[in-house]
Parts: sequence; structure tokens; C-alpha cells
Amino acid sequence: MTGTPLFERMALIGIGLIGSSLAQVARQRGLVGEIAISTRSPETLRRAEELDLGDIYSLDAAVAVEGADLVILCVPVGANESVAKSIAPGLKKGAILTDVGSTKGSVMEQVSPHVPDGVHFIPGHPIAGTEESGPDAGFATLFDQRWCILTPPENVDSEALEKLSAFWRGCGSDVDKMDAKHHDLVLAIVSHLPHLIAYNIVGTADDLETVTKSEVIKYSASGFRDFTRLAASDPTMWRDVCLHNKDAILEMLSRFSEDLSAMQRAIRWGDGQTLFDLFTRTRSIRRSIIEAGQETDAPDFGRHAKD
Amino acid sequence: MTGTPLFERMALIGIGLIGSSLAQVARQRGLVGEIAISTRSPETLRRAEELDLGDIYSLDAAVAVEGADLVILCVPVGANESVAKSIAPGLKKGAILTDVGSTKGSVMEQVSPHVPDGVHFIPGHPIAGTEESGPDAGFATLFDQRWCILTPPENVDSEALEKLSAFWRGCGSDVDKMDAKHHDLVLAIVSHLPHLIAYNIVGTADDLETVTKSEVIKYSASGFRDFTRLAASDPTMWRDVCLHNKDAILEMLSRFSEDLSAMQRAIRWGDGQTLFDLFTRTRSIRRSIIEAGQETDAPDFGRHAKD
Ligand SMILES: NC(=O)c1ccc[n+]([C@@H]2O[C@H](COP(=O)([O-])OP(=O)(O)OC[C@H]3O[C@@H](n4cnc5c(N)ncnc54)[C@H](OP(=O)(O)O)[C@@H]3O)[C@@H](O)[C@H]2O)c1
Ligand SMILES: NC(=O)c1ccc[n+]([C@@H]2O[C@H](COP(=O)([O-])OP(=O)(O)OC[C@H]3O[C@@H](n4cnc5c(N)ncnc54)[C@H](OP(=O)(O)O)[C@@H]3O)[C@@H](O)[C@H]2O)c1
Repeated sequence: MTGTPLFERMALIGIGLIGSSLAQVARQRGLVGEIAISTRSPETLRRAEELDLGDIYSLDAAVAVEGADLVILCVPVGANESVAKSIAPGLKKGAILTDVGSTKGSVMEQVSPHVPDGVHFIPGHPIAGTEESGPDAGFATLFDQRWCILTPPENVDSEALEKLSAFWRGCGSDVDKMDAKHHDLVLAIVSHLPHLIAYNIVGTADDLETVTKSEVIKYSASGFRDFTRLAASDPTMWRDVCLHNKDAILEMLSRFSEDLSAMQRAIRWGDGQTLFDLFTRTRSIRRSIIEAGQETDAPDFGRHAKD
Repeated sequence: MTGTPLFERMALIGIGLIGSSLAQVARQRGLVGEIAISTRSPETLRRAEELDLGDIYSLDAAVAVEGADLVILCVPVGANESVAKSIAPGLKKGAILTDVGSTKGSVMEQVSPHVPDGVHFIPGHPIAGTEESGPDAGFATLFDQRWCILTPPENVDSEALEKLSAFWRGCGSDVDKMDAKHHDLVLAIVSHLPHLIAYNIVGTADDLETVTKSEVIKYSASGFRDFTRLAASDPTMWRDVCLHNKDAILEMLSRFSEDLSAMQRAIRWGDGQTLFDLFTRTRSIRRSIIEAGQETDAPDFGRHAKD
């Protein structure tokens, strides 16, 4: 990208996997002029500085947002209210305020009451990530060929919305818009349920008395290891997601459990046809995901290519 | 590998992912002299011949095993009894008969009654695979750095056991020995439960009326896609596994469901501490699996490395 940056100064509040990736892509592609960074702990702030992620560093979020025309909250979803309170006095008139949190209804409720007049609050969520966290985990191509969902309020300023969309497109993403409630339902099935199921199965394996942990580790290439990736995700982030998207998650969990009971029943009664039909129906979705450019088409996620 | 092959003639009954991989590694590393191949359908046999996987091809399994000193059954677990019956008349005295099936108690029950005197039957299971099937899916390095579990009967001939172990080591694997019952319990947690959970969650997502299939596909990079790999595995193979390892699978499913109810309860009551503790405890196991050489240490299974 060449020419004038979209924003003169971007402030990132929180500089973990997502914040660090945003800093890197925005600078590499010239999306913003300056980058101001704030985070909670002196250690993380120092590390961000060592990695040369920004231009201005401050432990005081209100200082970091001063003069910024784009402010992105990159903290666990449960921390958004206190962060919003603390930055409110420093926000510049006309600035766009957004976030990257994995739940949207709760973030809107937490942040909206603290947004000063003249500041455009447009919540967002990039559908991109890895199981790692912290500033060292970030990389500039994280958002390439991924979707970013924005959940603008009804009275959104259309110019601000377009400018924020252009920023995400500059990061390599396609932009979708939907209301926060629908976002939370969609993410409950595509992201929250998978993570919870992964955490749960790894917990179940960990508790067995009849199979040792060393056996689970040795033979994990037969399937189990696939789940350990999601189950290695950040505990704070996922605790917050559970607490802040409770209704949609409970709904998906109960549907999953019903279906599991039906499967259990088919196994108990030796109903091979029901099992065969389910196992056939689920095959096609992977093909569609690969065709949509959201997954590698190499067998075994391409793990063997690296052997 | 140089020098005399371990076996003069290997017969593969079934030439899908596993059979084809065995043919390729055995030939490349000189583990066997000749390779005889048999499969059920003329189409698959023709494909095996086009891929030049063997030296002798026959639709009659009894013909293929003639003169073979190593016979490996590479068919879905439910097909082992009929295959054992049909090859019995052709088996050579002193031959080693083994299999690669994902369940072991059932295969022993199916095959043992049909094994002629003087033939050494030693069941086996390579802990290696991908979600693909058929002869085209095979590759010579599939078994490298993986485990192969043998479940020898009590009165096993120790020389035959050592010879079969040497074959698997030649394929690149480490060999473990255990009884069939324990194998089936271990595999129920490390492989069968993960596959069933993956099939189930993909089925649940497929059934939703409130979230469209196209949304599931678009946003799958947020977690869901990880499960679609296992859920794309062969339906016949997995139906058979369910029917042939019923007790151990039902035991693991019920433990998993209990744990899931506890998690559901913690979410419903907003018990963040319980969630945080579970999500923390499950992190370390992935590290151990990577250290044991059973998983890549690249974030996101290394998917981004290929972008
Ligand atoms: N990880 C993913 O795959 C992913 C994907 C899409 C969206 N998201 C969302 O992106 C957001 C950030 O995730 P991440 O993966 O970048 O997290 P991360 O790597 O763990 O970084 C979190 C950042 O937030 C700060 N922070 C943590 N707790 C805080 C608190 N109570 N008050 C103020 N600051 C706090 C941390 O500061 P210190 O280090 O200084 O304590 C750090 O700078 C979350 O809302 C998450 O839901 C994550
Ligand atoms: N896939 C894995 O990841 C994996 C890993 C470890 C162990 N295993 C075990 O390895 C065995 C083979 O799996 P695979 O993945 O190689 O399967 P595959 O690719 O689907 O190939 C199956 C082979 O068995 C033949 N076959 C299927 N049904 C049969 C029947 N009723 N009677 C006789 N032959 C039949 C097929 O013949 P036609 O094509 O001619 O019909 C084909 O040659 C299974 O027992 C499985 O549990 C699989």
C-alpha cells in the first residue's frame, strides 16, 4: 500500500497476539502514521518496545489514546469496561473506537456507556488467531484471507464505518457486518463450542486412572493431538468468553449434548446405519471450507510436509 | 536399508491408505522381496497396479497369500472375519499373519478361529494415518516416528514376534506391546472418542437453523475447522470401529459427558475460577506431545507457514 495512511495515529490498548499482529501489519502496509501502545504490565510494554512494535509507549491508556484517530481495544473481553472508563477522558473528537473481542454483545454493553459524544464506537472481531498469546506471538499476515466481522450500532456514522472497513481490508481481511446478537450465536458454534469441547476432552483424558498420561501422549497422533491445539489457548481469554457469551454457549452445548446422546444410543444398540449416515454427512463440509480458502487442502493439516 | 529383505514375499489384503503406504515403504526400504496385493474391487486393484504398488495382483485373497511369509490384513475391522476365512486355505506354514485394524479385541476374536496350525497370528495397529483413504492416499513416510502397537497372544512365538517388530522398525516406527483389552481402552480415549466428538460437533453445526452453513464455513478458522479433519475420515472404517469397540467407547463417552455437564454448570453459574483452572490444566499436555515428537511445534499446526 502506498500514499497517505488511512489514520494518522493508531492507539492499541493491549499488545498480545492480536495487538502485536495489528501493529506489524499496519506498519508494514502503511495503514497508519504513528502507533501508540499501552498495556497493563511494565513487562509486556517493555517487550513491545524491544520488538519495536510502535512509536509511543505508555502504561497509561488515557495517554496512549491522546491524539489518536483510531483506537483499538485488544484485551480479554472481560477487561473492556475498565479500559473504556480509563481511556474516555483522553479520546479525541471524531476518533473511531473499536475492539477485537471474541464476544460482541457484552463488549457493546461494557463500552457504550463510556463513549464520549463525537467518538464513533464500532465493535469488531477478526476471525483469525492462533493458540499462542503475548506480543511475541504476533505476525503481520495473521489477518490475510480471513474475515473481520463488524457489529456497528444502528445509528453508526457511515463514513466512519467505511474507514474502519478499509483498515481491515488493508490488513488483508474481508469485512462482514451483522448485529451483535447474531455474531454471538454464530461464534458460539464455530469457535466457542469447539474450544470448550477441546478443553473438555483433554480434561477427561487427563483424569483417567486406567490409561496413563504417557500413553495418551505417545499415541496422540491417532486423533487426540488435534484437540490439544485449541485446548492450549489462553485461559483468561476463554474464561472471559464463557462468562460473556453464556446464553449462546449454553444453547450450543445443550444441542451438542443431545446429539451426543443420540450417537451414544446408536453405538449401544449397534445401529451401524445411523452411524454410517452421520459419518457420511459430515464429510462434505471440510471440502467446502477448503474451497472457501479457509483451510489448507493438504492431508493432516500439512503436518507431513514438514517431516 | 540394504542386505537381505526380512521377508521374501509380503501379501497385502486391502490396499487403501494403510496398505498402499506399507507397500511403498516396504519396497523403498527393501524390507520385503516381492509384494502381492489383493483387494475386493477390480477398480481398486487396477488403481494399485497403475500406481505400481506391487508385483502380483489378484482379486482372490487366497491366491495372493500363497507363498507369502508375511500377510497383512488392511481392511476395515468388521471385514476381518470374512477375509480370514477366505485366505485360510492359502496360508503357508510358518507365515506371520498380522493386521492393522484400529480395534484389537474384536479382530483377535474374528481371525483366531480361522488361523491354521503353524501360522503365527500377531495382531497389530500402526498409530499413524490421515483423514484420506484409498490407494492414492498412501505415502512411504506415513509410519516414520510413529508407534506401532502389537497385541501378541500369550503363547506367541518369540522369533516371529521379533521378526514382525523388525519389520515395523524398518517402516520407521517404534514398537510397543500390550494386551488387546488395554489397547482398546487406550485407543478409545486417544482416537475413537476424538473422532466421534468431531463427527458429532460437525453434525450439530450442520443441523442449526439459526446459523447458516455458509456462515459456519466462512468463519470456521476460529476453531471449527480443526474438527472437520477428523470428521472427514472414512465412514465405513469408523462405523466398524464403533461397532467393534463398543464397551470402551461407551465408557469414554460417558466420562466425557459427565465432565461436560460439570463445565456447563460452571458456565451457567458464572464460576470463572473453575473454568480458569480447567483451561490452565489442559495446556501442558500439548507441550508434552510436541516434546515426544508426536506433533509439530509450529503455531496453528504450521498452516500459516504455507500461506
Ligand atoms: N487469540 C485469538 O486467537 C483471538 C482471535 C480473535 C480475537 N481475539 C480477542 O482478542 C483479544 C486479545 O486477545 P489476544 O490473543 O491478543 O490476548 P493476549 O495475547 O493474551 O494479550 C492480552 C493483552 O491484554 C492485556 N490485558 C489482559 N488482561 C487485562 C486486564 N484485565 N486489563 C487490561 N489489560 C489486560 C494484556 O496485558 P499484559 O500482558 O500487560 O498483562 C495484553 O496486552 C481478546 O478479547 C480475544 O477475545 C483473540
Ligand atoms: N485411516 C487411518 O488413519 C488408519 C490408521 C491406522 C489403522 N487403520 C486401520 O487400517 C485398516 C484399513 O484402513 P485404510 O484407511 O487403509 O482404509 P481404506 O483406505 O478405506 O482401504 C480399505 C481397503 O479395504 C478394502 N475393503 C473395504 N471393505 C471391505 C470388505 N468388506 N471386505 C474386504 N475388503 C474390504 C478396500 O477394498 P476396495 O477398495 O477394493 O473395496 C480397500 O482395499 C482399517 O482396519 C483401519 O481401522 C486406519
